This record gives sequence, structure tokens and C-alpha cells, in this order.
Amino acid sequence: MKKTTNKVFIATSLDGYIADQNGSIAWLDTIPEINTIDTGYNSFTESIDALLMGKSTFETLCGFDIEWPYTKPVFVLSNTLKQGDLKFGDKVKVVSGTIAKVLALIHAKGHHHLYIDGGQVIQSFLKEDLIDEMIITVIPILLGGGTALFSSLDKPMEFECTKTIHFLEAIVQNHYKRSRKK
Amino acid sequence: MKKTTNKVFIATSLDGYIADQNGSIAWLDTIPEINTIDTGYNSFTESIDALLMGKSTFETLCGFDIEWPYTKPVFVLSNTLKQGDLKFGDKVKVVSGTIAKVLALIHAKGHHHLYIDGGQVIQSFLKEDLIDEMIITVIPILLGGGTALFSSLDKPMEFECTKTIHFLEAIVQNHYKRSRKK
Repeated sequence: MKKTTNKVFIATSLDGYIADQNGSIAWLDTIPEINTIDTGYNSFTESIDALLMGKSTFETLCGFDIEWPYTKPVFVLSNTLKQGDLKFGDKVKVVSGTIAKVLALIHAKGHHHLYIDGGQVIQSFLKEDLIDEMIITVIPILLGGGTALFSSLDKPMEFECTKTIHFLEAIVQNHYKRSRKK
Repeated sequence: MKKTTNKVFIATSLDGYIADQNGSIAWLDTIPEINTIDTGYNSFTESIDALLMGKSTFETLCGFDIEWPYTKPVFVLSNTLKQGDLKFGDKVKVVSGTIAKVLALIHAKGHHHLYIDGGQVIQSFLKEDLIDEMIITVIPILLGGGTALFSSLDKPMEFECTKTIHFLEAIVQNHYKRSRKK
């Protein structure tokens, strides 16, 4: 069987939130200079074959007045969205069902290295121990509440921090790899 | 008025917990080699004049079969502990009341740079924006639940990540300074 990987590339606050208490991500611009430097996003997306995102992430994206930002195939995991009704409906494929079923479908299309995006989808993948790598950029702000990146798990899960990069003497990006040796 | 600082030196899991769901900190030994290297604890303690810890942290310490580990004065913040009854009662001073009152008392004794330890005390200090520096060592394990380092805040609080150190290609330690410029 071909090797497959599921990877995360995401920013969190220092207290682990991906959106604030109003669902906003405006705090990502706490240190605006971050937008002027290379934080590895392009090299990350070169390492993946396709994206799988959740409904909320997709809807947030649809709310921005932007051109379609992805060059790789994008799958949206949702049991309620209808393919026909979508903004960017020609750019994405809605997939539904269990994670195993969705992964089988995406792998069958030849996409083996996936960018998993969106808090709920990431949490679902973690619950089934299906995340292999996480690149987490920590914005040095305590939000004090919001949408957490991580949630409950049945058992602890060990990673290695393989690399850490310090940007602008202000922001840290940590690269984690799942360690399943034991 | 003399400059005062309140500093944190603590380890958390990747998902931000300081103790697991059973109150245990055994997961700190996920990468046991960490105990064989210098993670800066000694140089940190040289930078402080005294410690202020919470009741739970003190009681956890009392539960270990160890000699008293501190060389600096230690204050235990508690409204219920009685000085006379304590193990290590000759080593610590119980203080009670508001944080402002406790800080005034400790400063009056000539201790201006404090190590603030224990989840609840750290959270209380953060709620009043009284933490100036945090050195957080992140053990690369997702616990999936437990005692969180951070909690709710009335408003967001910005920091700078002034330094990041990568230990054993496995663990990252981030140095944060409160940024109150705005």
C-alpha cells in the first residue's frame, strides 16, 4: 500500500485557539510583519497532493472577497453541503461519510499526502490517530477563550518537535511529527 | 518605585495542560533525556528573589519524598492553610488575601522579582495582567484533557516570543515577554 500522510499547517494563539470568542481570526495580524516573510506555507503546500477541509473553514473562505487561493485539489468534508449550491462549486468536491470512507475515496484519486484543515476535522482525525505531522505557528497573544485547536482524546499521543523556527524575534513555529514507536 | 517582575517557568503538554486528567505529571518524563540537560531552570532561579506558589503546587511538592528543593524564600498563597501545621513549615510563609496585598507584603520584604508557580496562581495573576515573562517548555504530547495552564481572560493580552530553544530535537522551550506598548 502506498504511504499516505495527513498534515496540519495552522496558526494558534499562545493559549491554543484558532479563532477568538467571536469566531474572528483578526488577531492573526497581531504582528502584521508576519505577512511579509516566508513562513513556509508555499513549501508546505508543495509537499501535499490535496486539501481536506471542514465545512466551517470552507464557509469562512467563501466569506472572504478573494480569488480561489488553492492550486491543489480541495475536498470539503460535510454531510449537509450540496455540491450544486456552492460558491467555488467548480473548485471543490464535497465528500461525506466516515473519515475512513473519505480517505479511501481521496486516496483512490491518487492523492496520498493531504493537508487537513479546520478545527473540527483536525480534531476528528486526531481522535482516530490519523495526523502524522503538524506545523503550528504560535501567535504570541493570549485570547482567553475561543475555538480550541485541540480537544479531548481517548489516550495521550506522543509527537516529536523536529524543528522550531523563530520569526521576527516574536513568533515561533513548531514542527511536530507523530511518534508511534512504542 | 522599584521595578518588579513576575515570571513563570513551567512545562505544558502540546495541548496546554500542566497536569493530566488524573492530576499526574508523569508525562513530563515522555522524553526522559530532558532530565539530563540544562533547560535553564538554574539560570532562571538565579534571576528571581522569591517564589510564590499556590496551595495545590505546595501540596504536590509535600507529597514527594524529597529534601526541600529551593534556596530562595518561598511564599504559599492560601486562605486556608495554617502556618503551624505545615510540612516544611519552617521553609515557607503562608500568605493570604488579594494579590495586591500579597505582592505588597512580598515587595516590602525586599523581594521584587518573583517566580509565580501553580496553575491557579498563574491564572489569577494573568487575569490582573501581572505576568511579565513566561518560559514555557512544551512536552510534545497531546494529553487530551487535564488541568490547563491558561483560562479565561477579560481581554486579549499580547506577548513577544523573545527566544526559542530546541532541546534534543524533540522539545521546544519558548520565552515570552508581555508586550504592553499599545
